[in-house]
Amino acid sequence: MAKDFNSILITGAAGRLGTQLRNGLAHLASEVRVADRVEISDLAPHEQDFVFDLADAKAVEYAVKGVDAIVHFGGAPLETAWKTILASNIEGSYNIYEAARRHGVKRVVYASSVHAIGYHKLTDNIDEAAPVRPDSLYGVSKCFVEALAQFYWDKFGLESACLRIFSSFPEPPERRMLWSWLSFDDCVRLVEAALTAPHIGCTIAFGLSDNKVCPVDNTNWGRLGYHPRDNTEFARQKVEAAVPRLDPHAPASQHLGGWFVDLPHPDDEASK
Amino acid sequence: MAKDFNSILITGAAGRLGTQLRNGLAHLASEVRVADRVEISDLAPHEQDFVFDLADAKAVEYAVKGVDAIVHFGGAPLETAWKTILASNIEGSYNIYEAARRHGVKRVVYASSVHAIGYHKLTDNIDEAAPVRPDSLYGVSKCFVEALAQFYWDKFGLESACLRIFSSFPEPPERRMLWSWLSFDDCVRLVEAALTAPHIGCTIAFGLSDNKVCPVDNTNWGRLGYHPRDNTEFARQKVEAAVPRLDPHAPASQHLGGWFVDLPHPDDEASK
Amino acid sequence: MAKDFNSILITGAAGRLGTQLRNGLAHLASEVRVADRVEISDLAPHEQDFVFDLADAKAVEYAVKGVDAIVHFGGAPLETAWKTILASNIEGSYNIYEAARRHGVKRVVYASSVHAIGYHKLTDNIDEAAPVRPDSLYGVSKCFVEALAQFYWDKFGLESACLRIFSSFPEPPERRMLWSWLSFDDCVRLVEAALTAPHIGCTIAFGLSDNKVCPVDNTNWGRLGYHPRDNTEFARQKVEAAVPRLDPHAPASQHLGGWFVDLPHPDDEASK
Amino acid sequence: MAKDFNSILITGAAGRLGTQLRNGLAHLASEVRVADRVEISDLAPHEQDFVFDLADAKAVEYAVKGVDAIVHFGGAPLETAWKTILASNIEGSYNIYEAARRHGVKRVVYASSVHAIGYHKLTDNIDEAAPVRPDSLYGVSKCFVEALAQFYWDKFGLESACLRIFSSFPEPPERRMLWSWLSFDDCVRLVEAALTAPHIGCTIAFGLSDNKVCPVDNTNWGRLGYHPRDNTEFARQKVEAAVPRLDPHAPASQHLGGWFVDLPHPDDEASK
Amino acid sequence: MAKDFNSILITGAAGRLGTQLRNGLAHLASEVRVADRVEISDLAPHEQDFVFDLADAKAVEYAVKGVDAIVHFGGAPLETAWKTILASNIEGSYNIYEAARRHGVKRVVYASSVHAIGYHKLTDNIDEAAPVRPDSLYGVSKCFVEALAQFYWDKFGLESACLRIFSSFPEPPERRMLWSWLSFDDCVRLVEAALTAPHIGCTIAFGLSDNKVCPVDNTNWGRLGYHPRDNTEFARQKVEAAVPRLDPHAPASQHLGGWFVDLPHPDDEASK
Amino acid sequence: MAKDFNSILITGAAGRLGTQLRNGLAHLASEVRVADRVEISDLAPHEQDFVFDLADAKAVEYAVKGVDAIVHFGGAPLETAWKTILASNIEGSYNIYEAARRHGVKRVVYASSVHAIGYHKLTDNIDEAAPVRPDSLYGVSKCFVEALAQFYWDKFGLESACLRIFSSFPEPPERRMLWSWLSFDDCVRLVEAALTAPHIGCTIAFGLSDNKVCPVDNTNWGRLGYHPRDNTEFARQKVEAAVPRLDPHAPASQHLGGWFVDLPHPDDEASK
Repeated sequence: MAKDFNSILITGAAGRLGTQLRNGLAHLASEVRVADRVEISDLAPHEQDFVFDLADAKAVEYAVKGVDAIVHFGGAPLETAWKTILASNIEGSYNIYEAARRHGVKRVVYASSVHAIGYHKLTDNIDEAAPVRPDSLYGVSKCFVEALAQFYWDKFGLESACLRIFSSFPEPPERRMLWSWLSFDDCVRLVEAALTAPHIGCTIAFGLSDNKVCPVDNTNWGRLGYHPRDNTEFARQKVEAAVPRLDPHAPASQHLGGWFVDLPHPDDEASK
Repeated sequence: MAKDFNSILITGAAGRLGTQLRNGLAHLASEVRVADRVEISDLAPHEQDFVFDLADAKAVEYAVKGVDAIVHFGGAPLETAWKTILASNIEGSYNIYEAARRHGVKRVVYASSVHAIGYHKLTDNIDEAAPVRPDSLYGVSKCFVEALAQFYWDKFGLESACLRIFSSFPEPPERRMLWSWLSFDDCVRLVEAALTAPHIGCTIAFGLSDNKVCPVDNTNWGRLGYHPRDNTEFARQKVEAAVPRLDPHAPASQHLGGWFVDLPHPDDEASK
Repeated sequence: MAKDFNSILITGAAGRLGTQLRNGLAHLASEVRVADRVEISDLAPHEQDFVFDLADAKAVEYAVKGVDAIVHFGGAPLETAWKTILASNIEGSYNIYEAARRHGVKRVVYASSVHAIGYHKLTDNIDEAAPVRPDSLYGVSKCFVEALAQFYWDKFGLESACLRIFSSFPEPPERRMLWSWLSFDDCVRLVEAALTAPHIGCTIAFGLSDNKVCPVDNTNWGRLGYHPRDNTEFARQKVEAAVPRLDPHAPASQHLGGWFVDLPHPDDEASK
Repeated sequence: MAKDFNSILITGAAGRLGTQLRNGLAHLASEVRVADRVEISDLAPHEQDFVFDLADAKAVEYAVKGVDAIVHFGGAPLETAWKTILASNIEGSYNIYEAARRHGVKRVVYASSVHAIGYHKLTDNIDEAAPVRPDSLYGVSKCFVEALAQFYWDKFGLESACLRIFSSFPEPPERRMLWSWLSFDDCVRLVEAALTAPHIGCTIAFGLSDNKVCPVDNTNWGRLGYHPRDNTEFARQKVEAAVPRLDPHAPASQHLGGWFVDLPHPDDEASK
Repeated sequence: MAKDFNSILITGAAGRLGTQLRNGLAHLASEVRVADRVEISDLAPHEQDFVFDLADAKAVEYAVKGVDAIVHFGGAPLETAWKTILASNIEGSYNIYEAARRHGVKRVVYASSVHAIGYHKLTDNIDEAAPVRPDSLYGVSKCFVEALAQFYWDKFGLESACLRIFSSFPEPPERRMLWSWLSFDDCVRLVEAALTAPHIGCTIAFGLSDNKVCPVDNTNWGRLGYHPRDNTEFARQKVEAAVPRLDPHAPASQHLGGWFVDLPHPDDEASK
Repeated sequence: MAKDFNSILITGAAGRLGTQLRNGLAHLASEVRVADRVEISDLAPHEQDFVFDLADAKAVEYAVKGVDAIVHFGGAPLETAWKTILASNIEGSYNIYEAARRHGVKRVVYASSVHAIGYHKLTDNIDEAAPVRPDSLYGVSKCFVEALAQFYWDKFGLESACLRIFSSFPEPPERRMLWSWLSFDDCVRLVEAALTAPHIGCTIAFGLSDNKVCPVDNTNWGRLGYHPRDNTEFARQKVEAAVPRLDPHAPASQHLGGWFVDLPHPDDEASK
């Protein structure tokens, strides 16, 4: 049977999630271009490797030309110095969107983050339309790309899903992740849903598994057709035995962004 | 055990959905009156046949007198000439409601339609309280009946469920219906829930199965107690192989009403 | 200086408000067509008379052809028999919209009514986006035309303002009208604003003066640029002296529609 | 494995729900203090008995000192004389909160009630943030405690879950309870979720099982991690055979509070 | 000309606002009963004095019997010991409402307070429907009375206006009051509007003058017909010269309740 | 009398609005630092000149050190090449915020723009909390700074007002500006209100005069204490005579951003 796409590009393909996506999305496209700053050695037959910095607009354009869709998971994955955020996440994502526009790409699935809305409280019960409240420069860069994605849809008709991933790790190592976890398999499900949903315009969605506790309202999962299948109950006993209970008054307990709200400014001496 | 109703009336009983409802609702009532413009030949013992045009107020009254509830699925089922819409859907539905009031009917379950809100976008994520945006004269007539139903509840205490059915067919033949489909069995479940829920006042609900993608918010299913059991995954592979992907920029892709938004005015020469 | 319009049509021009509009809107158009079921004898030089029933589609089309905008205040102005509502308000308004579409009219200003939302309570504090709750068949017909207006905007680009007029009389004769009154001058201001606002799509607005008590939220006045200048304080002493206080528990006191909520069905024997 | 709590206090422990909670929560704490106005004879080894009136501040303080969390289900469980409501529910709950604050208790789980919002209609589809509309003095006292709980969180950092329990009985004996029922097991699940959720601030949640019909929006269940497992379908046939259908126009049918809206004032002669 | 009321009762009539109301409302009623815990010496001819504690139900009933409306401004006006709050504000207000019900009083205008919602932030932009967040036991007692008022409307048809007065003093002595001030004249206007509006059910409204800065949304002023005429600009220069700027990070700057959020618990040793 | 501020910095001080602000805000501060890329020749005695590019972090820091507040109106004022947007608006604004944080500045008033929300429709009636929908790369950069401002408030307690200025010119030259105009005097009033309001956290507000037509909801003006005094009626006759009516179906008519929605991508060949 025909695949959904002739060719897709995955950025950040050497990263923690990028590796999962290479496997999980393989069945969707005849060709998968895998891009990262480092070389990927274990290429599958249907994969083609691209090594470049996202800030290199020409290299980005070369990798983008000819693909149907982009899964953009590249860029700095954590709070870091402004210069890095600026180059990798802001300029880099602009380069992706601009190349996509120039070459007629149909859809971009972007790894946004809970840290775009990290200063909202668990008790605020927000949905995806709540105003942004980033908890880090990293989070601010995610807000920038979400605004850019909306602009490219409204003006140029390039569809985007901005997936605000909470915490995607092999398993939850601490108590906050008992509610903020996104399993690798659910992450792949979410990206696949975002790639294949019939019409999404520019849709923001939260990236979470079906955990027992869920402090946000996942209004847009229906539009994407995302149905998580995993949850953290398998790990509860282990985590609760190993990690003491959180102080409910601590900012890291009260806000969606967790310990990111406690981070100092990344350019401060103190944080080096 | 006693049935829920002594007698119910199904209009449009010879139609695609009417036929399903005759079977599916049989267990609810001792007598089922089946009404349509055409005669129904395969009557069951508990069924009584009525043949008339909905615009014939006297005939409507004759069929309504003595029933406990009405399942009003009759009328023009698609966009058509204004004169037909006016007679069948507007006058016809008025006749139903007025006869129901005069004869003490307790509840009407009305086949409204997605086309009452067809100009909302998939990305609007509407619920049932969103303002109407009909996509056709057919849809405008559905808005009329919904307003009429609200009036008959508020003033005369006649309860109504207005079910905005999306696409109810044996199986989904095209890509839009992968999200807009309502299986026949779920259609029967929805009507049964609407007939038997303890108190509904005038409730609007969307008529959809539990499909993977769902671009609306089904706030009122809880009040009716409707729990769909079917979905379109059984047909996905076949549909996606047979039908090319939709252009996400096409109005028919972006709006809930689908291809209805592309229809010309039914009274234009061009559309004849 | 050039007028805003070459030609406009006012329906219901012989009525209470129509008469006001003939005077008040005269400066906006070089030609004003005045239409009613009865002949208008005191024509001004810029006025042209049309006598017809709104249910007469051909006569409507003849009057509409060539105008830039329509001020549609014709039709039954109160609760009355269904047959009249159907012919004058439903068919009649359809004829207006359909003629407007066929002949490229740019905008329709429609006299909708508080009775489209008469079953909302004063304490509900509704705005224009609240679901309709008509208090009469008359109100149901207003809901029909509002839905029709939205449809003609969404599909055919014909702009409409649906003005839900509360109580427009020379002065307020009773206590409810101390808050529900729309002065004749403000009525003219509202229609003029609706005719001349730069872009309105299909806008619903409440028709009220700047009265001391105002139980609704006039969100859309800004879009139209309507600024009422009158209020009922001039009449308060007289009204309060003449009319006893309302029972706050009476349905007519609690609902926006006032005594319309107490009306029987217009087709009942009892109401004849 | 270590228990979640060293010590918890259950008030109203001799009551219908208190008895269930003694069993259901036993695994959570090394010590469970069980308090009521009457002595409890069947103490388990991990249980310690306290007998007092909630209005006795000293006795409350003695029972509270040393516990980690309080499950406050004590007080008058139904509409009753104001003096009782005042002493047991208002003063009594104040005593609980004040003792909790003085002795560093981390969290209170409070048995609020549907009767705090009993005058909302089934068709209002409210969520937990809707304004209170109590249907009884009993309900007013629940509103008082919810406000108190919010205050103790905002000012003193004492977390609370206010569980608006609908109808928690062994099985549903009448038609309203087919939608308003909370099974004993789900009640225990809800309290356990409220005790163990990572961060709740002051959270209001509805106490309902997963019944077929659900006329409210359970936005906050996600934050608590409550997932009901029971429903009333097992009892439907029996109840529907035994109890006639409700009149949909009866206030008791239309409002969430059910027959509480028909109660007279408890201090009236007529009600004695 | 006839007065609006035969007789009204003002509680707290010897207090700061009570004194203003005696003057300001004199024109509304033939008889004004003025009640307080202390005797009032300067009675006007139309005034009748009542001296009692609000906790004395019989005395309250005696004062209430025969009045048309009650302006209930009595009770503890500030944070104070729980026993006082309980007796004066909770029991006392219950006594007022219960006497009003027994003797057919039509409407109560109640002095609620900003301290019922003092923990909301200025940046929250709340309206009157926001959930309560009291900042003091005093504020909790205001929440209790608001719930009670809603109950007496819903069940017994006794109308209430709950006026959440911010800061009503002769002039603003500090910077917060530049936005939170309610002039004495506007206070009288607000109470008069609440007494004379045609239908109010149970309406909550904020008590503020027309100050330059206003951090809340006064949705319900329209329903009452309240139009403030004063503002604090006359005092700005003096206040800003005398009082240093507030620290924007201080809780007292960020919350509607101002310095109430910094108060200790009134029953703590530290606060005595 | 003492001034509000010892020292403030105005960026973009040589620009159209910067020139107005130099005059209009002079009374607020003992020292006004005026910064731009070009030298300002007509310095007043209280003014100090700084010439630098915003992308020069060191120069920015030098100008910021020692001021109490910053009025940040510098950067590219229109759609332009990405490289310019990136350097002037993104890096430049980051430099301002970061210098403000390092040197204890209390508040930043930022010239955001309607183009951050330009793809919303006039008929959407948005308020300031609506999700961003930028109509240009310029608009995307405004979204970035708004997110940055929120972050610096939430994490570092630096207050910001983000003023989404619509069209601030000496007078309105075209029809759209009849509703989108912000007079120079009102612009100064808005900035002064934003500088002097008691507590603003991070507040977004629309920059508009009190024009007859207003298609947005100015919820946050109250928090800032902004009261516009000008409107466009003085220019209506001239503009309407000179400029033909807009096509209501044109995207530039339907969207808040006006002709910005028609702009091509600034980096396209076609747009050079």
